[in-house]
Amino acid sequence: MYHKEFEVRDYELDLQGIVNNAVYNNYFEHTRHSYLKSIGLDFAQLHADGIDAVVVKMETEYKNSLKSGDIFRCSLRVEREGRIKLIFYQEIIRDTDQKICAKTRVTVACIKNGRPIEPLQLIERMKL
Amino acid sequence: MYHKEFEVRDYELDLQGIVNNAVYNNYFEHTRHSYLKSIGLDFAQLHADGIDAVVVKMETEYKNSLKSGDIFRCSLRVEREGRIKLIFYQEIIRDTDQKICAKTRVTVACIKNGRPIEPLQLIERMKL
Amino acid sequence: MYHKEFEVRDYELDLQGIVNNAVYNNYFEHTRHSYLKSIGLDFAQLHADGIDAVVVKMETEYKNSLKSGDIFRCSLRVEREGRIKLIFYQEIIRDTDQKICAKTRVTVACIKNGRPIEPLQLIERMKL
Amino acid sequence: MYHKEFEVRDYELDLQGIVNNAVYNNYFEHTRHSYLKSIGLDFAQLHADGIDAVVVKMETEYKNSLKSGDIFRCSLRVEREGRIKLIFYQEIIRDTDQKICAKTRVTVACIKNGRPIEPLQLIERMKL
Repeated sequence: MYHKEFEVRDYELDLQGIVNNAVYNNYFEHTRHSYLKSIGLDFAQLHADGIDAVVVKMETEYKNSLKSGDIFRCSLRVEREGRIKLIFYQEIIRDTDQKICAKTRVTVACIKNGRPIEPLQLIERMKL
Repeated sequence: MYHKEFEVRDYELDLQGIVNNAVYNNYFEHTRHSYLKSIGLDFAQLHADGIDAVVVKMETEYKNSLKSGDIFRCSLRVEREGRIKLIFYQEIIRDTDQKICAKTRVTVACIKNGRPIEPLQLIERMKL
Repeated sequence: MYHKEFEVRDYELDLQGIVNNAVYNNYFEHTRHSYLKSIGLDFAQLHADGIDAVVVKMETEYKNSLKSGDIFRCSLRVEREGRIKLIFYQEIIRDTDQKICAKTRVTVACIKNGRPIEPLQLIERMKL
Repeated sequence: MYHKEFEVRDYELDLQGIVNNAVYNNYFEHTRHSYLKSIGLDFAQLHADGIDAVVVKMETEYKNSLKSGDIFRCSLRVEREGRIKLIFYQEIIRDTDQKICAKTRVTVACIKNGRPIEPLQLIERMKL
């Protein structure tokens, strides 16, 4: 399981004083891209090579709100689904009380020349 | 069914040249808040009154990418689930070809003093 | 003088309940790109053609805060400075009281193959 | 001089593959708020206490573009101007080549009940 540590930045809060739901997608994405880097892959380089990893589905539960100053970890576990899809299971866990603030199931597909491809390069590195 | 028209803004695109998945949450939220306004409710005023509408779940499918210059409509339909929850069904439909770019099912709960409440004020105005 | 109308979106507010200063850059940029479109130019197409318009300097004054629900116009006037630079003068004026909320002076240069170029295509269309 | 380390997150890039100019405001702000925390002050707490630190002016030069994967430091030095204003001098310096990517001069005022106040609490902690 891969982990990435974050701290809430005040510009990520909305008028309710909590992290806006869209920002969790940013946290989840940055964790996925950091994970890719940790196994020798690079999102920007993949794009330059003509391979675009795109999110096709997200199922997210928001359980506890993150607030100003909160430190948290975003976890990541990846599975394969069928020939084409990768499923990322991710959780955001607040440091102070170890509570899950959000969890998501992200379905990703790789696109080349506008068509889904089997993500061989990724699967190999991810040892799936 | 409520609709809100948008145009893609270039700062919403990522290095793939498509609207980043987090930005769809922004579109969906702005449409919900505009809908509230259209029925005489106000998200910021609700917050000032101590009632916070919070997203507890989002299930989003990304079907076609939005690009620079795209015009689209975001639709909204709302249902009640149980005593506490409101479910918003929303779709983003591109103008040029009427294709669905994204669709979501958003579960919202209202919180007062840290506890979920029956959203009576909203239900009445929404005629649910 | 070019104008673009906007409404504040609640996700653009921070915990102070006012539009975060970074978001004004978004408003200013979207107005510049809309202006380009209005004179037959396209920021994304320019990039695809190898020409990148980049901001090299911004001098912004924040005079009055935008809040939830505010409608405003962003104005734009452009001048040339020397052979290379374009200067955009932009103001954000709130509808309700016609007060200036922010004003900026944006210096833009065009880059091709990593080097500044004379923005001939832009200058011609902008009639500078 | 205060420093804060960052890494570029891919959602901060625009279609040119470089960090969008608005995002630098985010970096600068997060550095200022982290600095406040380091001297025992808290932006969110100040707001809860009725004191709002607001940016009234920013003069920013963008000198080199940040790209995917870049690590950088944001520096901060603060001075007083007159009785009311604080001036933050901030620079963003890329790790790989120690080049300045952006530098800014940010004028901040503190507002209480809608009026500027002498920021005594801040001045004392900042030893100005």
